[in-house]
Amino acid sequence: MAVVSRRQILVEWGHCDPAGIVFNPRFFEWFDACTAGLFAHVGLPKPQLIKTYGIVGIPLVESQAKFIRPSKFGDEVTIESMIASFKRSSFDVEHKLFNAGTLAVEASETRVWVGRDPDDPTKIKSQNIPQEVIALFHGN
Amino acid sequence: MAVVSRRQILVEWGHCDPAGIVFNPRFFEWFDACTAGLFAHVGLPKPQLIKTYGIVGIPLVESQAKFIRPSKFGDEVTIESMIASFKRSSFDVEHKLFNAGTLAVEASETRVWVGRDPDDPTKIKSQNIPQEVIALFHGN
Amino acid sequence: MAVVSRRQILVEWGHCDPAGIVFNPRFFEWFDACTAGLFAHVGLPKPQLIKTYGIVGIPLVESQAKFIRPSKFGDEVTIESMIASFKRSSFDVEHKLFNAGTLAVEASETRVWVGRDPDDPTKIKSQNIPQEVIALFHGN
Amino acid sequence: MAVVSRRQILVEWGHCDPAGIVFNPRFFEWFDACTAGLFAHVGLPKPQLIKTYGIVGIPLVESQAKFIRPSKFGDEVTIESMIASFKRSSFDVEHKLFNAGTLAVEASETRVWVGRDPDDPTKIKSQNIPQEVIALFHGN
Repeated sequence: MAVVSRRQILVEWGHCDPAGIVFNPRFFEWFDACTAGLFAHVGLPKPQLIKTYGIVGIPLVESQAKFIRPSKFGDEVTIESMIASFKRSSFDVEHKLFNAGTLAVEASETRVWVGRDPDDPTKIKSQNIPQEVIALFHGN
Repeated sequence: MAVVSRRQILVEWGHCDPAGIVFNPRFFEWFDACTAGLFAHVGLPKPQLIKTYGIVGIPLVESQAKFIRPSKFGDEVTIESMIASFKRSSFDVEHKLFNAGTLAVEASETRVWVGRDPDDPTKIKSQNIPQEVIALFHGN
Repeated sequence: MAVVSRRQILVEWGHCDPAGIVFNPRFFEWFDACTAGLFAHVGLPKPQLIKTYGIVGIPLVESQAKFIRPSKFGDEVTIESMIASFKRSSFDVEHKLFNAGTLAVEASETRVWVGRDPDDPTKIKSQNIPQEVIALFHGN
Repeated sequence: MAVVSRRQILVEWGHCDPAGIVFNPRFFEWFDACTAGLFAHVGLPKPQLIKTYGIVGIPLVESQAKFIRPSKFGDEVTIESMIASFKRSSFDVEHKLFNAGTLAVEASETRVWVGRDPDDPTKIKSQNIPQEVIALFHGN
């Protein structure tokens, strides 16, 4: 059974554009926080994740989103997030944003587990995701 | 021949995250401005576009992005944008972000031409894109 | 007794800059949401406030902030907000951001109650704040 | 004679709120970039500044702003920035934002020159600003 984490967000004035609806980059900001929330949910808050495994972060390498219905200033939305699959050094996350019970945005991300490049510390390089991290997402 | 518009952006401190690379929602913010820049490029700055055609905006309905290489604080990047195709009430935009001559992000957007819903002005509804707007993007 | 509203915020990766601390504009974004939260707290969520009184918004005309201690990625902060005083068409808000019980940011805002300018609807113009709105903040 | 740097900014859709005017945190984001621009203007782009002097950054400790007139989506604004004074480990910056030739926002910042705290590298600590840096801002 996949681990799912949920987050509620109140759509604020400053999240919206002159049309009064959420400006699209905000969704990606929220999804980023929701991915961090997934790790926190299994006991690995991102600051600890980075420190424990000596990584630089888990940057996006690919993302897709469908904006099905707009969300307006004052709406309360819920985002459900889960990791769909793990590969050697990357993983896929799925986010579903619901507004008043209706699916409003559907998104998927591929993220990579990266550390400093040992050959050039100004660069980043993918690393294998530790099995113990993957195991946290596979309850039984 | 497709119309291409270009924009140069200096990666600022505030665009970057604790890993020192551009935080991904910023790219979507830039792409949004670049789409507006495309219309400005053919003589239809977005404020005028909205006023002239009585629309609410051109919100995203779908987006895809590949983040090929990170961009760092202090980098100067160039975004090339073009409209790949027009449909009845939607259009597809392609953005390529180059960093030091190398393709760093590749993205595509589907946007809709929307006005207020005549049946419910608190809602928005897609409209046909005027032929004269489409014509601006088809040189001869 | 002044009405005080409180909000807890988890400092996310995307709120922070390459130094790993909250990028200062984020505080102003949070304070903006906290001012809206104050009105929600007395029963006037901002969307309803705008609709009920036919105003355009409550934009800032002045702000001051002291950044006493940085807040880091992963910190949980609490913002306490209150309206310090009402004038005819403006009001002063105070925000105190606490991090682990210590005052980390102290800010004040002056905001104006504005509607469309009757002489030029593309402009905004200050209006008198209704007494019933002011009364909501003076329980006893 | 104080060194003044200028930056032109096109007010984009995504910079604006449902009232169609610039959402106030954007101004602080722009001012942050303009302060970086001041250092670039005297030959010390911020990435080089940080590397050369081994500092963590130049975070805000205090800021004040007066929002005199709103700026709307599509406006082109100009920000003039200068360092008003240097102290031992801090300096004051002034920003004036002009919209169509009229002063629209006036702001001042106090920033500190900070490095890692030698006693606790997870913290930051103010340092003396090198005389050669100060000298760059004093023409003759």
